[in-house]
Amino acid sequence: MRLALDAFGGDHAPQVCVDGALAFAREHPTDVVILVGDQARLDPLLGPAKKRLPNVHLHHASQVVGMGEHGPQAIRGKKDSSLRVAIELHRDGEADGFVSAGNSGAVMAGAALLLGRVDGVSRPAFAALLPQVDSERPSVMLDAGANTECDAKLLATFAVLGEAWARSLWKLPRPKVCLLSNGEEEGKGTRLTRDTMALLKKSSLNLAGYIEGNALFSSRCDVVVTDGFTGNIALKTSEGAASAVGSILKRAIEKAGLPEKVGAALLKPTLAGLKKVVDYAEYGGAPMLGIDGVGIVAHGRSKGRAIERALVACRRTAEAGLKGFQIEAMKQAAQWLG
Amino acid sequence: MRLALDAFGGDHAPQVCVDGALAFAREHPTDVVILVGDQARLDPLLGPAKKRLPNVHLHHASQVVGMGEHGPQAIRGKKDSSLRVAIELHRDGEADGFVSAGNSGAVMAGAALLLGRVDGVSRPAFAALLPQVDSERPSVMLDAGANTECDAKLLATFAVLGEAWARSLWKLPRPKVCLLSNGEEEGKGTRLTRDTMALLKKSSLNLAGYIEGNALFSSRCDVVVTDGFTGNIALKTSEGAASAVGSILKRAIEKAGLPEKVGAALLKPTLAGLKKVVDYAEYGGAPMLGIDGVGIVAHGRSKGRAIERALVACRRTAEAGLKGFQIEAMKQAAQWLG
Repeated sequence: MRLALDAFGGDHAPQVCVDGALAFAREHPTDVVILVGDQARLDPLLGPAKKRLPNVHLHHASQVVGMGEHGPQAIRGKKDSSLRVAIELHRDGEADGFVSAGNSGAVMAGAALLLGRVDGVSRPAFAALLPQVDSERPSVMLDAGANTECDAKLLATFAVLGEAWARSLWKLPRPKVCLLSNGEEEGKGTRLTRDTMALLKKSSLNLAGYIEGNALFSSRCDVVVTDGFTGNIALKTSEGAASAVGSILKRAIEKAGLPEKVGAALLKPTLAGLKKVVDYAEYGGAPMLGIDGVGIVAHGRSKGRAIERALVACRRTAEAGLKGFQIEAMKQAAQWLG
Repeated sequence: MRLALDAFGGDHAPQVCVDGALAFAREHPTDVVILVGDQARLDPLLGPAKKRLPNVHLHHASQVVGMGEHGPQAIRGKKDSSLRVAIELHRDGEADGFVSAGNSGAVMAGAALLLGRVDGVSRPAFAALLPQVDSERPSVMLDAGANTECDAKLLATFAVLGEAWARSLWKLPRPKVCLLSNGEEEGKGTRLTRDTMALLKKSSLNLAGYIEGNALFSSRCDVVVTDGFTGNIALKTSEGAASAVGSILKRAIEKAGLPEKVGAALLKPTLAGLKKVVDYAEYGGAPMLGIDGVGIVAHGRSKGRAIERALVACRRTAEAGLKGFQIEAMKQAAQWLG
């Protein structure tokens, strides 16, 4: 596998991108990472040429898309940006997928413009992986933030794409699909969720009804469908709640007596493991669904470890043949999607 | 203070309601709790008459509104239900407020029908109290689930009501008001959030912009405004995430070695304190805002402790003069709310 990495995407680029690429390359000696970006700045970070890993390549790109730029404008305007060139390497078959921790609006615009969309998909989505209490396997939630305003047909499209993702990545024969709502009863939800449910009932998907926010981490389903506004709120609220629990615990230990402090010291490895589970970084970014290619968006705050995990996720997604699964699934859905 | 308690509301009624009422009555000997419901069933739970607390009263009501019933229909149809009678006691001045852990749709319908709404409020809301990492004082989020479909004027009304709540309950001179959205930048959000922000900018509220899900527990603001669908998702997702963190920690400790088990044992009081903080029960239910009265809805799963806390919240709300604050705030908002 050959993977293109936008070396100048994210708050801590390019250092963390180089770190992540090196870590990935060491673990995967038969794969290649192509670091895309300003060669003059990347060269010193990689050290002397003769000591370099043979499977870390450099591909020069002179421009950078900023985190605050308008996505579509930046992609169109900066033809030699590290992001655009990374996507083009994938489009032209030089790479089997791409990873960026950059401006997510620009990543999405670039993927849609340069790679195109799967037939029948009007707008692609970001998927988020949610850790599950009773399973090693996360569930996938989409849209995680690309499309704030959706209609029923678009949400039903997300259901098809998410299901194809779960079949290709996890080899599940019949992934369970749920719609995020404010209650499990038929009458709950908004007009949008009820219209979407009515449409989904025409499909042959393994529908498991509505799912509420408190069940998102309970292994109740494999694919959670929602609009990008609600998906973003759910995702960030869960981050905030998990992190608040951690802070409150830390503060309570600081204020507590010696036995508690000893207890905390003895528990340290376990607490670190806990952080790992709730940490988005371990899951390695959000796959883009509905694009005619393989793209992973890592969190803007990503450090080296998160970039490495995003490269692993990209490799796995390309290997699983997600693209073929999506094309086939959308073909079959054309009848009932209308 | 005299508080009416719907003794047959909730999954574990009437036992937990009696428990909660007794605990409250013991702690507040100068206040009165009126247990409303079937006297024949409540009598044995209270024990022999001569041993009873003098400030726990009984008020008979023969019917019960079920958790699955259609709210407005149940309120209209069951004229002698414990819920309806409890609200009527408040309406008629026999009680300074009411508490129910019953069917929240019926509680809201009953409050709107029997108590009426504050002038200018088209639809009342449930508020939820969110614990904050850096403060003993929770922030208030509304709507927490009463109105799944809202327009900008209704959301702006919620901002006014929430702000009045924070001024009356917490004595904050200028509570900070935020709108829940998927980003802090101006252009983020949906048409609804942007229209609401435009309307709120005409007000003299202490606007603190958009707030994202990950900041809901960070003391960034005092009042969070959102529609009832999104509010419900945010609230339940935070419950789910906090509980998932707890489960993962518990499991990790079970699998771990002796030092970790000793550590966990030493930390037990701290972990219990943590549970208390993230537990909705400690905050004692959701106040209703926009109704012409004082009503608290406790969680359907409430146990005795949660009922007791809901009674404390009801007492505090009545004492704070929330009703007057809301009436005055809506009067002043009439100009810009339109």
